[in-house]
Amino acid sequence: MASPSRPHVVVVGCGFGGLEATRALVRDGFEVTLVDRSNHHLFQPLLYQVATAGLSAPSISGAIRHVLRREMRSGRLTVLMGEVTAVDAAVRCVVIDGHERVGYEHLILATGATHSYFGHDDWAAHAPGLKTLADAFDIRRRVLLAFERAERNAAQAGDVDPADLSFAVVGAGPTGVEMAGVLAEIARHTLRGEYRRIDPHSARVVLLEGGPRVLAAFAERLSARAQAQLAALGVEVLTGAQVTAIDDAGLDYRRAGDNGDREHRLPAHTVIWAAGVAASPLGRQLAQATACTLDRAGRVLVEPDLSLPGHAEISVIGDLAAARSVDARGESVPVPGVSPAAKQMGRTAAANIRRREQGEPTKPFRYIDYGSLATIGRSSAVATVELPRLGRLNFSGLPAWLFWLFVHLYFLIGFRNRMLVLGDWAWAYFSFERRARIVIESPPAAPSGPAT
Amino acid sequence: MASPSRPHVVVVGCGFGGLEATRALVRDGFEVTLVDRSNHHLFQPLLYQVATAGLSAPSISGAIRHVLRREMRSGRLTVLMGEVTAVDAAVRCVVIDGHERVGYEHLILATGATHSYFGHDDWAAHAPGLKTLADAFDIRRRVLLAFERAERNAAQAGDVDPADLSFAVVGAGPTGVEMAGVLAEIARHTLRGEYRRIDPHSARVVLLEGGPRVLAAFAERLSARAQAQLAALGVEVLTGAQVTAIDDAGLDYRRAGDNGDREHRLPAHTVIWAAGVAASPLGRQLAQATACTLDRAGRVLVEPDLSLPGHAEISVIGDLAAARSVDARGESVPVPGVSPAAKQMGRTAAANIRRREQGEPTKPFRYIDYGSLATIGRSSAVATVELPRLGRLNFSGLPAWLFWLFVHLYFLIGFRNRMLVLGDWAWAYFSFERRARIVIESPPAAPSGPAT
Repeated sequence: MASPSRPHVVVVGCGFGGLEATRALVRDGFEVTLVDRSNHHLFQPLLYQVATAGLSAPSISGAIRHVLRREMRSGRLTVLMGEVTAVDAAVRCVVIDGHERVGYEHLILATGATHSYFGHDDWAAHAPGLKTLADAFDIRRRVLLAFERAERNAAQAGDVDPADLSFAVVGAGPTGVEMAGVLAEIARHTLRGEYRRIDPHSARVVLLEGGPRVLAAFAERLSARAQAQLAALGVEVLTGAQVTAIDDAGLDYRRAGDNGDREHRLPAHTVIWAAGVAASPLGRQLAQATACTLDRAGRVLVEPDLSLPGHAEISVIGDLAAARSVDARGESVPVPGVSPAAKQMGRTAAANIRRREQGEPTKPFRYIDYGSLATIGRSSAVATVELPRLGRLNFSGLPAWLFWLFVHLYFLIGFRNRMLVLGDWAWAYFSFERRARIVIESPPAAPSGPAT
Repeated sequence: MASPSRPHVVVVGCGFGGLEATRALVRDGFEVTLVDRSNHHLFQPLLYQVATAGLSAPSISGAIRHVLRREMRSGRLTVLMGEVTAVDAAVRCVVIDGHERVGYEHLILATGATHSYFGHDDWAAHAPGLKTLADAFDIRRRVLLAFERAERNAAQAGDVDPADLSFAVVGAGPTGVEMAGVLAEIARHTLRGEYRRIDPHSARVVLLEGGPRVLAAFAERLSARAQAQLAALGVEVLTGAQVTAIDDAGLDYRRAGDNGDREHRLPAHTVIWAAGVAASPLGRQLAQATACTLDRAGRVLVEPDLSLPGHAEISVIGDLAAARSVDARGESVPVPGVSPAAKQMGRTAAANIRRREQGEPTKPFRYIDYGSLATIGRSSAVATVELPRLGRLNFSGLPAWLFWLFVHLYFLIGFRNRMLVLGDWAWAYFSFERRARIVIESPPAAPSGPAT
């Protein structure tokens, strides 16, 4: 497929890492084939807004061909929609949908992560996670139907089943905290006065965290701020709570009490999973094919320059990679699974391919941490900003929320989406409305797949 | 369920007719229960824009509870999400989802229409129709995946299967004409330069119509204008073409040739059904339960006041009703299946319930025809406007398109949506972009249903 004069690079996955690598490679004159199983790039940090009916799907996603329309015009980029099911490193090709083979001279794997239920895959049916637009629609449907079911049951039976109006969020990282905050806001404000037999305000939102505090990646002071803010929104926060079972009526958890650990039951018809993350299954196939090593989360251990040990022509980036960097004090640290890290890895992997083609030595990946952000409900957030030479700045509340808003709008793909999302948000903020409260009637027919 | 002091009216279906009736009844002090199988009111005239990736679903739909929030505040309205599966006219109750019974003193049935394949139900799998948001997403997925499939096949096999890039639209009423026009626009403008191996411009869009002309409800002169405009957009229009078979590789049709009727084959992997409409299945159940009469399209024959013969307490409105009105010359004419007619029937049915409660005689329904509109591509339309005393005004082209734009924005539910839709359109018009080109990865899990 590649033009004979230009080395051919295959990039698998069009998340933040794959998109950034593709852009750099096309700019540097490479022949690039980008393969993704979906037709769109997704701005995952705002996916919780789609799940909670605040934004429509097109507001946070763009067709890959449209996002990369400038690169398409170069005549050096091919975009193929399909799932890479295997890498055949011996003959240097990827296999798409089990049967089509595309050869490469260099390969970048950026297929990201999925949720992990820590060996309890049966929990998936009761507690959806949030990684794709399909996940977001599933959660949106469950949340909206829970209120409808409660109203129906109350109209018929005359009383409300508390489990109908109980929402459990498992895992208090940024996604769990954001979901819990918005759910509380929906119950208390958005749906107020819209039901006859139930009081949405009586809904319970419970956030369960196995560790000792929420937002563990942040400073302890910010965790405490975030927990206080969640409580003010009406969210019940249970830290040190280990979920031991999930079924369609609720969940069991173990938590330290006065007399040691105790088992508890939380009846809740809606459970959302924001706890575990595992690398995409392509990592396992790669481990079988190349004898590379995976960490416990299924991520591929890579060389300092992000290449696969023994296969300099293969780079692994983003959430699929267990990469290490060197911090300001010269210590080796793991690279976190956040979008700025994926973008930086995409640029480094592309630059190292250019260096290898030019006969130069590759450079090790160096992660630059600009800080972290998490939002809590409608006007609060926590922020950690790394300032060059000045060190780390922690802040919270409205200033952190405004900063969060600015950063997320700035990084949204495309000027148009940005203005529309800002319009949606401004309206939602002042009206307490959420405009995407739409449950699709019946699941659309299965996609026929691009190659059948 | 009803307060003892107020007569209880059940309204089934929250389309244009049911929504209008509900508003009038709550205003008049009735206790109302509105039952709909979905959680949203849909602005169906713009559904083709969702199917062709121009608008997001929330732009043309609103949660019923939100649309009716003022009525909710009256304390006289209950909204239940569920499907009315039967009417038990003898004991005056409706059955929801096969098991829950809700009694009524007055009943308004407004469950609308669905597509009809004229006895060929096996065509449904190959040629989806366009009535619900789920239908629109299905069509959107098929259209976008057709181009992706063509690019994949071209990259692998080196040539393009013309059937991959052939789109057939069956039926040249307003929906079929709108779909065909937009599909041609997508192929010629929106996707230009975004593929490497295929030329989207080479896509064929074929519009097949069994009758002698497109937009048969309009004057002949406007039909001719519309057909010329479609041809200018690159749509192949085949009138007098009777579809005789549809499968996953294309369709067969019969058409008059020089030597009599001839059978033809049109290879096309994407077929869209815009030909037949049938009343919702509740009509058949009603016919069995009350011995009322249905017309050939399954619509319920009603009295001049829209009530069911022999059941003055049941009214049937909108696309479920085969109603007649009296035109300006005093002749009896059938009421067309358009949204203004449904709204007018909703108001008449509500007013007649009020009259019956006050002991007054009911009034016959009188349809006021304000005209008809159909749009063709990005800046053309045909319009027929009925002017009081001045008669009928026919016009086409840009003036008709601007009029169409104004009317559709004016009638869109809610100020906010209207502004967002206008913004989307303005952007799409000048940029040729369509912002909702998103295929959801995998079908979301089946909804658990509100009552389970």
